[in-house]
Amino acid sequence: MQTPATQTIFDDLHALLGDRLTADTQTRNAHGAGFSYHACQPPDWVVYPNSTEEVAEIVRLCAQHQVPIVPFGAGTSIEGHILALHGGVCMDLSRMNTILDVNTDDLYAVIQPGVTRNQLDGRLDGSGFFFPIGPGVNATLGGMAATRASGTNAVRYGTMKDNVLALTVVLPDGQMIKIGSRARKSSTGYDLTRLFVGSEGTLGIITELTIRLHPYPEAIQTAICAFPSVDAAVSTAIRVIQKGVPMAKIELLDALMLHAINRYSDTNYPEKPTLFLEFNGSALAVQEQIQTVERIAQVFDVEGFTWAQDEASRQKLWRVRTDAAPSALALRPGSTPWSTDVCVPISKLAQCIAETQADIAQTDLTAPILGHVGDGNFHVAILIHPDDPDALEKANWLNSRMVHRALAMGGTCSGEHGIGVGKLAYMEQEHGNALAVMRAIKQALDPHNLMNPGKLLPA
Amino acid sequence: MQTPATQTIFDDLHALLGDRLTADTQTRNAHGAGFSYHACQPPDWVVYPNSTEEVAEIVRLCAQHQVPIVPFGAGTSIEGHILALHGGVCMDLSRMNTILDVNTDDLYAVIQPGVTRNQLDGRLDGSGFFFPIGPGVNATLGGMAATRASGTNAVRYGTMKDNVLALTVVLPDGQMIKIGSRARKSSTGYDLTRLFVGSEGTLGIITELTIRLHPYPEAIQTAICAFPSVDAAVSTAIRVIQKGVPMAKIELLDALMLHAINRYSDTNYPEKPTLFLEFNGSALAVQEQIQTVERIAQVFDVEGFTWAQDEASRQKLWRVRTDAAPSALALRPGSTPWSTDVCVPISKLAQCIAETQADIAQTDLTAPILGHVGDGNFHVAILIHPDDPDALEKANWLNSRMVHRALAMGGTCSGEHGIGVGKLAYMEQEHGNALAVMRAIKQALDPHNLMNPGKLLPA
Repeated sequence: MQTPATQTIFDDLHALLGDRLTADTQTRNAHGAGFSYHACQPPDWVVYPNSTEEVAEIVRLCAQHQVPIVPFGAGTSIEGHILALHGGVCMDLSRMNTILDVNTDDLYAVIQPGVTRNQLDGRLDGSGFFFPIGPGVNATLGGMAATRASGTNAVRYGTMKDNVLALTVVLPDGQMIKIGSRARKSSTGYDLTRLFVGSEGTLGIITELTIRLHPYPEAIQTAICAFPSVDAAVSTAIRVIQKGVPMAKIELLDALMLHAINRYSDTNYPEKPTLFLEFNGSALAVQEQIQTVERIAQVFDVEGFTWAQDEASRQKLWRVRTDAAPSALALRPGSTPWSTDVCVPISKLAQCIAETQADIAQTDLTAPILGHVGDGNFHVAILIHPDDPDALEKANWLNSRMVHRALAMGGTCSGEHGIGVGKLAYMEQEHGNALAVMRAIKQALDPHNLMNPGKLLPA
Repeated sequence: MQTPATQTIFDDLHALLGDRLTADTQTRNAHGAGFSYHACQPPDWVVYPNSTEEVAEIVRLCAQHQVPIVPFGAGTSIEGHILALHGGVCMDLSRMNTILDVNTDDLYAVIQPGVTRNQLDGRLDGSGFFFPIGPGVNATLGGMAATRASGTNAVRYGTMKDNVLALTVVLPDGQMIKIGSRARKSSTGYDLTRLFVGSEGTLGIITELTIRLHPYPEAIQTAICAFPSVDAAVSTAIRVIQKGVPMAKIELLDALMLHAINRYSDTNYPEKPTLFLEFNGSALAVQEQIQTVERIAQVFDVEGFTWAQDEASRQKLWRVRTDAAPSALALRPGSTPWSTDVCVPISKLAQCIAETQADIAQTDLTAPILGHVGDGNFHVAILIHPDDPDALEKANWLNSRMVHRALAMGGTCSGEHGIGVGKLAYMEQEHGNALAVMRAIKQALDPHNLMNPGKLLPA
């Protein structure tokens, strides 16, 4: 509903942005959902700033009119981070997508928040350096920082928290700050960089990132191997990590996921619990790592390795992993994934997955499992039709059981997807009275609760 | 001066702690300085809690009486973190020194804050696992977390920020919170663990830590090698890092430092700019790393390598590095070190050190250089007599020049020593208006400014 107040902010924003402000219904709806089961909640307007200064000006206008702001990157959040629960402005940062600097001497790049993973990969291709962190979708780096994303390489290279050196942030009052530095380490005051990484847009808007680059490895080897049971596959992964093998990737896919992949891609991999492995380093080091892993896998009755002998077959094998999501969705056409995301101490992982599988077996849900098992992190992709309340209820039951199990095991309710609105209900159980500290910080930096309100912190 | 108010808190603390509370002058003085040029400022009382619950009770009493608290570990801070600027209670945590759990399945240990580096090493010896982070002194792990310490292994294993999984903290109001988890990663809300790591006791008191353990490497090789110039040594280090060689340690010692070591230990290493190198990994991987580094070093006219062939000679070589501090001090008996601590992007390191050396040459200061050059971090150990105001002024000038240079190069005024009181003057320049965010957090969590007041944040 258009009120005098909303007309005023619309006019102010329009004067600043012209046609980079829209109230078009289709655009608003495309900005109100994300990749998940959460029902769309569109913003009132979508704005497309071109610079930090414009972001600051928009934030100042919104602060003045007490209008909420939801930052938006590629819209790939799966926990409802971008739902406009209280309406307001969706700040679409996708046009701030310039790679400002690639410094291979000091191993960093300076980028705007709308730069995507694929765009960054393209720019770094052939440079001898790469950025290791990437979720399964073509997210923006700003969004990845905001949700503390990780993905398949985290077992070796850490998460976004470990790979952001510095940020430019626009605070809720429109002030611009620069935090962190280009030095590899620092001990000068509160670690604001780590505070804003993972803050999900609730404390300010990231408008520039300095990220760490890593030398591209001399050699990469990729393999998949099937096991007689999930327990055997996971036990192999656990032993490999405990042994200190510097795996680049060590991913689990369960039998149902392999079935989905074969069906989707017309392949014929054994439909068994499978580890996807990637080794990198020098040629010699990789050979040695492979020998160690093969030896461990044999202890757990591995049923043979499929190795990629060249880059083309490596890319083909890698598709086994990257196509996991569409393959799973194709099991139930028209479905939406509810992707769970717990992370536990690695020795608890086999038990955690086994008990989860027993839960799934109690339902009629289609729910393949895949996981970054080197980190103790795994996902169940529960395939549900949005208009099936019974399936939604079962998915909720399964997710809730997983979270309580993970917390009881000393783990966390989200390894990498964040809280958004989807995990709000578990924050109290995971953090207890530490939640009051988070609330105090939120209150101190965003006293009017205008930055992505209703996310990360339960009311 | 004893007032009725101070008598009351003394009585309350005494009722709680008995003889674990003292106002003995010698004890107070031993708790008011640290390892540095800062003049002693003793607390009014020193207390020795035995448990988190006692810490909480002491904090509650101090909050009630508005008495400042300075947390204390081993007293090895070199930036004046433990000076009792406003008197009050020194919370000596050295008796909370139990190693509560060593879990090699999940690669973590749970410890009390008073556990020291040497104590932890002793406990882990023979376990097949180790904790990589260590400054040059036998600090407590609580103190190391509080100052975001790092040391010689940081180039490979990161700093305390990367190796603390979870903390128990007593907040300024006496509430106890648990933050982080035992999972390897999490994206559930603000990263409070990273906020408290490096907070220098200004937001609360760390009473328990869960730290990451790492598999002990199969092979370790150690070497030192001399170069014709600092530039050649540093250029070698830079190239090695850019090449992605996973060095365990890569340390620079300048010619004066080698002279000091020869004098102190009656050795005869070439008195030239020298790199101390440690390689770890599998036997094969180490051999390969060595070949790469030797090849790079030859480009920069390395003057030969001295290799440790066995554990005894490795320990002997390692003493070259560990004895650097006492060796330097012996150059000027009775002197105190003023250890500078800047960190810059690695490509700027050679220039930064060269310009620093030119500055030193303009003075009559005795000031050897050593550095964690793989991280772009180095120290000048300025040896001064505490009662020599002229030397103090020159040291201040030199330090200030270094900081401004490092900041101009995109670096930081402290790589690993923290702010304390020693670097307060540079916080504004390094962080600009981001300092207001730090102040807002401090105000939100410690509104009465009782936790280590006067440290980290300039007034």
